[in-house]
Amino acid sequence: MENKSAVPPTQLSHQECWSLLREASVGRLAVWHGDGPDIFPINYATDHGTVIFRTAPGTKLAAALSDNPVAMEADGIDPQVGEAWSVVIRGKAELLTQTDDVLNTFSLPLSPLQDGKKDHFVRVVPESISGRRFKIVPPSTWSTPAEGRTRSADE
Amino acid sequence: MENKSAVPPTQLSHQECWSLLREASVGRLAVWHGDGPDIFPINYATDHGTVIFRTAPGTKLAAALSDNPVAMEADGIDPQVGEAWSVVIRGKAELLTQTDDVLNTFSLPLSPLQDGKKDHFVRVVPESISGRRFKIVPPSTWSTPAEGRTRSADE
Repeated sequence: MENKSAVPPTQLSHQECWSLLREASVGRLAVWHGDGPDIFPINYATDHGTVIFRTAPGTKLAAALSDNPVAMEADGIDPQVGEAWSVVIRGKAELLTQTDDVLNTFSLPLSPLQDGKKDHFVRVVPESISGRRFKIVPPSTWSTPAEGRTRSADE
Repeated sequence: MENKSAVPPTQLSHQECWSLLREASVGRLAVWHGDGPDIFPINYATDHGTVIFRTAPGTKLAAALSDNPVAMEADGIDPQVGEAWSVVIRGKAELLTQTDDVLNTFSLPLSPLQDGKKDHFVRVVPESISGRRFKIVPPSTWSTPAEGRTRSADE
């Protein structure tokens, strides 16, 4: 991987963003939770310009459905070309009702990321979507001779 | 993977959380950005009970250094046992100065995730840390017969 020269990230078109979101299925949801942001990994499915995930009652659901907007990010790496991508949608989350109807209609490949009772479906309706593709820096580029020292540090 | 019965996630101890954070190097930073949360993938290193990442001037840096708290999440999967983990730290971000001193002292294996000029080091000082380990649901568990349909939907 030739490198060293700074390569700015490439901004992705909306079409490219959705195409990448459709290929992935694991993302991270950022919500405002009381006194600061919080993040949860989610398994999502795209659905006609929105994103749907399945969750249990709890912090994630409560925070997602508050009046505050949410953000969801998904990313991926193509090691062969040394590139990564990251797509972020920002918008409002809303609880889906009549989930059977929704599932029957759209046939979403919507597995919850973790086991457990996941009764609620939440749809994130984007107000904005943005994405970037960028060269990955080989880990050796910035490492110091003592790399790995922190692995044994006592935190 | 035997399944169907709901397995609640296991809460991790602080020690386990740090151990997992040390093993990983890619995380996602959630910040409050103007009118809602935003998320950025980052490459981080742990450093004596804090997390440090390297970034360029821009939205991520500005939002991270605002008065609002931030959250950073890292996760990983162990496919062999069908388990995943997720650790979240929530706290304040602060700009590091005298980066050479910092690097020389701690020898951090701190590669920026993407190429480009990454002049700034940011330290996240946790006010809380929490982590969970959970069984991953096999994708087939919840899929519908028409799985994959959304892959070709026109978003």
